[in-house]
Amino acid sequence: MATLADIGVSAALNILGAFIFLIAFAILRLQPFNDRVYFPKWYLKGLRDSPTHGGAFVRKFVNLDFRSYIRFLNWMPEALKMPEPELIEHAGLDSAVYLRIYLIGLKIFVPIALVAWSVLVPVNWTNDTLDVAVKISNVTASDIDKLSISNVPLKSQRFWTHVVMAYAFTFWTCYVLLKEYEKVANLRLQFVASEKRRPDQFTVLVRNVPPDPDESVSELVEHFFLVNHPNHYLTHQVVVNANKLAKLVKKKKKLQNWLDYYQLKYSRNNSKRPMMKTGFLGLWGEKVDGIDYHISEIEKLSKEIAEERERVVSDPKAIMPAAFVSFNSRWGAAVCAQTQQTRNPTLWLTEWASEPRDVYWQNLAIPYVSLSVRRLIMGVAFFFLTFFFMIPIAIVQSFASIEGIEKAVPFLKPVIEAKFIKSVIQGFLPGIALKLFLIFLPTILMIMSKFEGFISLSSLERRAATRYYLFNFVNVFLGSIIAGTAFEQLNSFLKQSANDIPKTIGIAIPKKATFFITYIMVDGWAGIAGEILMLKPLIIFHLKNFFLVKTEKDRVEAMDPGSLGFNSGEPRIQFYFLLGLVYATVTPLLLPFIIVFFALAYVVFRHQIINVYNQRYESAAAFWPDVHRRIIAALIISQLLLMGLLSTKKAALSTPFLIALPVLTIWFHYFSKDRYESAFVKYPLQEAMMKDTLERAREPNLNLKGYLRNAYIHPVFKGEDDDDDALFNNEENENVLVLTKRQSRRNTPVPSKMSGASSPSLPEVVQEDPEP
Amino acid sequence: MATLADIGVSAALNILGAFIFLIAFAILRLQPFNDRVYFPKWYLKGLRDSPTHGGAFVRKFVNLDFRSYIRFLNWMPEALKMPEPELIEHAGLDSAVYLRIYLIGLKIFVPIALVAWSVLVPVNWTNDTLDVAVKISNVTASDIDKLSISNVPLKSQRFWTHVVMAYAFTFWTCYVLLKEYEKVANLRLQFVASEKRRPDQFTVLVRNVPPDPDESVSELVEHFFLVNHPNHYLTHQVVVNANKLAKLVKKKKKLQNWLDYYQLKYSRNNSKRPMMKTGFLGLWGEKVDGIDYHISEIEKLSKEIAEERERVVSDPKAIMPAAFVSFNSRWGAAVCAQTQQTRNPTLWLTEWASEPRDVYWQNLAIPYVSLSVRRLIMGVAFFFLTFFFMIPIAIVQSFASIEGIEKAVPFLKPVIEAKFIKSVIQGFLPGIALKLFLIFLPTILMIMSKFEGFISLSSLERRAATRYYLFNFVNVFLGSIIAGTAFEQLNSFLKQSANDIPKTIGIAIPKKATFFITYIMVDGWAGIAGEILMLKPLIIFHLKNFFLVKTEKDRVEAMDPGSLGFNSGEPRIQFYFLLGLVYATVTPLLLPFIIVFFALAYVVFRHQIINVYNQRYESAAAFWPDVHRRIIAALIISQLLLMGLLSTKKAALSTPFLIALPVLTIWFHYFSKDRYESAFVKYPLQEAMMKDTLERAREPNLNLKGYLRNAYIHPVFKGEDDDDDALFNNEENENVLVLTKRQSRRNTPVPSKMSGASSPSLPEVVQEDPEP
Repeated sequence: MATLADIGVSAALNILGAFIFLIAFAILRLQPFNDRVYFPKWYLKGLRDSPTHGGAFVRKFVNLDFRSYIRFLNWMPEALKMPEPELIEHAGLDSAVYLRIYLIGLKIFVPIALVAWSVLVPVNWTNDTLDVAVKISNVTASDIDKLSISNVPLKSQRFWTHVVMAYAFTFWTCYVLLKEYEKVANLRLQFVASEKRRPDQFTVLVRNVPPDPDESVSELVEHFFLVNHPNHYLTHQVVVNANKLAKLVKKKKKLQNWLDYYQLKYSRNNSKRPMMKTGFLGLWGEKVDGIDYHISEIEKLSKEIAEERERVVSDPKAIMPAAFVSFNSRWGAAVCAQTQQTRNPTLWLTEWASEPRDVYWQNLAIPYVSLSVRRLIMGVAFFFLTFFFMIPIAIVQSFASIEGIEKAVPFLKPVIEAKFIKSVIQGFLPGIALKLFLIFLPTILMIMSKFEGFISLSSLERRAATRYYLFNFVNVFLGSIIAGTAFEQLNSFLKQSANDIPKTIGIAIPKKATFFITYIMVDGWAGIAGEILMLKPLIIFHLKNFFLVKTEKDRVEAMDPGSLGFNSGEPRIQFYFLLGLVYATVTPLLLPFIIVFFALAYVVFRHQIINVYNQRYESAAAFWPDVHRRIIAALIISQLLLMGLLSTKKAALSTPFLIALPVLTIWFHYFSKDRYESAFVKYPLQEAMMKDTLERAREPNLNLKGYLRNAYIHPVFKGEDDDDDALFNNEENENVLVLTKRQSRRNTPVPSKMSGASSPSLPEVVQEDPEP
Repeated sequence: MATLADIGVSAALNILGAFIFLIAFAILRLQPFNDRVYFPKWYLKGLRDSPTHGGAFVRKFVNLDFRSYIRFLNWMPEALKMPEPELIEHAGLDSAVYLRIYLIGLKIFVPIALVAWSVLVPVNWTNDTLDVAVKISNVTASDIDKLSISNVPLKSQRFWTHVVMAYAFTFWTCYVLLKEYEKVANLRLQFVASEKRRPDQFTVLVRNVPPDPDESVSELVEHFFLVNHPNHYLTHQVVVNANKLAKLVKKKKKLQNWLDYYQLKYSRNNSKRPMMKTGFLGLWGEKVDGIDYHISEIEKLSKEIAEERERVVSDPKAIMPAAFVSFNSRWGAAVCAQTQQTRNPTLWLTEWASEPRDVYWQNLAIPYVSLSVRRLIMGVAFFFLTFFFMIPIAIVQSFASIEGIEKAVPFLKPVIEAKFIKSVIQGFLPGIALKLFLIFLPTILMIMSKFEGFISLSSLERRAATRYYLFNFVNVFLGSIIAGTAFEQLNSFLKQSANDIPKTIGIAIPKKATFFITYIMVDGWAGIAGEILMLKPLIIFHLKNFFLVKTEKDRVEAMDPGSLGFNSGEPRIQFYFLLGLVYATVTPLLLPFIIVFFALAYVVFRHQIINVYNQRYESAAAFWPDVHRRIIAALIISQLLLMGLLSTKKAALSTPFLIALPVLTIWFHYFSKDRYESAFVKYPLQEAMMKDTLERAREPNLNLKGYLRNAYIHPVFKGEDDDDDALFNNEENENVLVLTKRQSRRNTPVPSKMSGASSPSLPEVVQEDPEP
């Protein structure tokens, strides 16, 4: 067991690490040649054009103004300065509400920590159970344990304090959650009702249009809605299967990049035509002229693309049984989205269309029965992934051992037997296998969600986040508390009684406090400080800048800032809620560490959202019910574990008083769900009618049909050339901007434990994402 | 353990009992003076007017045509003759679909029984485990056990047969369920779309209208819907709080009954004015003339009623914040019922209005927050009711013991000490206490549902049925298998591991086969045969006929046939599904008994529905998702128990193969729910539009507003005098019929184990049902 001093040393080290990151960041961000890495959002908004320092050549790359280095923490107050409404305007509601998750953490845990330290710590401290135990049986006990519930003797009446505190913490958490739910629901409704006209307000996605022998899908859709929504139907846009076309376009883009690379190489060294090999990774195959080869390849591809484009437009098989149907009023769209159209609930499925850039086009045509089967398969697969993920890793690890390698590639034997290499393999490779798996996990979960058939990026990410949270809970939380793999745990839980499970975990919890404190400092403090450094995007930008960039357009593409990764970021925050709530009554010492995490992360991410990230979709905080649900789940888990812990303390009378807590918490969950969730699912008719009336009064001659006609066209049909120019269009033209930005959409650098650790997932996602 | 011969004797006795009931029924139903008890439905329909046999005075009461007695089972083919569409027309969809539950039982269990007997019985029989066991340890084993899974030796490969059979039975059950769900959903949609115009097709119930300082509720509703549904709103009817008025009207009716009684008494014996005491139950108090007293009382009440009626109409406090809003088209109503109206999802709540006669008026004004709290309270109360119901009964029982009575009323001591009375008290009273509780249970559950705030009789009954099923499962099924009270079970389950619970139950299951076979014969065979005898309505009818009936109208009221009690009847059927599915793989011997139950019950209830019951509401089979869900629950329980049983048989390899079954079954549940449930919850716009268009073409000059204006007026405001005349109106006038029939609505005689047993719940329900 670590003592308070040990924790102090560890804290000092981590704070030092965090400071180094922050100072490095402060220095790097001031260099003009890094400007596009640390302030890309402003470039995308067109508010920043070139590094701010003009003058000498050197000063274009290095900041020589030493006074600016002194104020190296200046970005912190700056990040906090922007008021919330402006932030919503600047970065969208998703980002602003995402920040509120950190704020909730502070709102919940600061008062809890104050109360816990002023009540629980004295109650725990003024016992001598551990001192006695140390004397009797030579068990080591540290100061930390003296602050925790372990120090209260069996059958003590003092446990009533913990029961009362559990009630107080539960009520406070629920109160904060309810207030916050209300606030976010209002923000969302205001955002949706905000003045700007957006195509998704008028549009509904219809899926599973039944086949008809006499009519095409387009005719069928038009007739159906003309009959069943006679006064409201306006126009529609049939969905086409352009997946192959999108792949070709993407391939062409890649070749174009290589062509740029070779041309740049040639222009720098005119003496030699750049040569390349056509085989795998350029390692073997025929040697050809890089420039000529790529030009001819691109030409071939362009022809293929033109043919495919022709085919998609004319071939009825490329038409999917789905369409975006637009109405002449928000009221009409709201009605259509919320009602059932026909007897058979699996045909003519209507739902709100997501924003055009949020649509995940590939999944639009999956038929209903298949969806249900896919969900089953993924459910089972996720179960095995969670409980048996150690098996394939163990296999890889056994292969990665000395004997395994020697067996597979005998000729390497002499090399491996060398002492240094041997120790590297033995000490490092098994860890690497596990680490690699964990790094790829969010990507794997995203692929699973995609297979399940969700049709918007936001819902894909939400589902992946739920799964990641469950995985974290089983494998990180339970896995750290109880030794052994998840499957061993499952097996032992199945063999234990329902009463004993919380007991087993509950007993172990106080002992693991130091471990989790260290975890918070490494992952939460240093990790978040590393996040702001953006090491990976920094390197990639400079590499691209050197090898590929020819025009301003190229430079904009190279600086692609990515967006907040909800699917991996949110479950990470949730883990801190879980830790905080579980340890609030048990070891209040842990709370300040969590508070520091929430405060630091809030500032860092506020800065990032203002200056860096460029969200690739806007779901208007549709994820909030998930956030709310998971905090409540953490609350219930903490209550059950406290019950288990107290029942082993022979405080028999106090345990029954805790039973009411989970019941009340579950009830609170349903209450708040009934009260606020509909704001995230439905669109009230009154709002729609109000907006419609206002708009009709203001713009009586609006050509809505023209406005909506091409809003939901597949991105691949938007001209390839105009997309990047559109990036520099002003706000007024946001609709087009939205659509074309999608063209150059990149994947989010996943915020994971270390900024560096997040890198490997990028190429993976890009590969299986077949859009251009 | 009972042998096959024992079962045979028991079966013979029960068949004999059932036959006696059937013969008694055959004789009683042919007597003209019972005609109104056994064929009330035809009287209510106006198709039968007076006993069919004219002629001599005696023949008016007794059927002397001996030939008709010979064909005493004639009613059976007659009951089966009516085709389903006609049955729907005759008795409504609820009744017709209720019968399909029995049919499903036959469809599921007849093939399962055939397969089980041709495969499992030989496999079980040709072992000698039990013979050997008998020889070794002198355990008694019967022939029944030789047919069951107990006869297969440990570790036998024969268990594979049971695993394969479990799969086959599951697939067959799911297949039947899916087909049936489809069929019922279609029936419902056809029924709803049937030609007849009904007010609930155009009407939506709005609740939680927010208070407004400037406008009355009525104005507010009108303005809100004129603004937000401008082209569809037609008219509305504000809900008034007429609960007190309804109570007064009911009281007056009761007094009127007594007046009739005394007047009849006087008319039969003119020599003496009938006297009565005014005190409690007529036992003490002032002695007054019965006729004069009641006339003056009724006069007083009439005045009070007139005043209250005045007050309800004029007092704004009597106006509830709820209204029935009618639209000019089914489309408009369908849209309003399925959409959210305002930002705050707890205001302006819209849902389909039930049929006028299905509305439970008292609950219309419960505010939203209170609803949520009520649900929590009732959830907790039901938990305690299920697991601790033995405690109050034990207290009552201890009071009902000799010592308890002697202590409470010492002066009765000499009487009680008499030997005969003592033995009655000791042997009978404790059982009576339990029996009384079980008889009142459905009523208690109905009261709980009412407190929870459901606003239609059909939803009240559905909720009560769910609770009754759970209670049955815990206390009858588990309670019979494992000895001990429900709370003791719960306690032991909490202390057992998740693995061990199905094991504990699984082991006990084969041993309880004979018990359940006997249960099926007593409750299922004899009980159902007793149902058709209608002993209680028969007695009540003749009592009323003798004491109260003066006019034809009185006679119609006296013959009140009641309706099918879904809240207690359906859970009873479900219990047989549970038994059948659990024992299908374990002891196939039980299946024929269940098949006989389903067949007999099908015939009996078909007869009752055709000739007797008069449904008090029509929910268009809205209960089917519940039925479906509970059969699936039974299927999953049977799979888990088989897993538990097999794991104790050391057939280790076969158990993992069973794990897939519950997973697949749960998946099937979600699949079928997604596919068909919406037919029971939503009303597709296409259907609505079709009906609207048709109607407009056929009746272009229809005065819909006039048709709808008074459809949802509180029943107490419908004239009191015209209601019974309306009963004799023809079908054409069904809307009015529906409304006024409600006036004379009575409670259903609950079909319980014995026809007699069901009686005591009637007065209870009537008492707490404050409608006239």
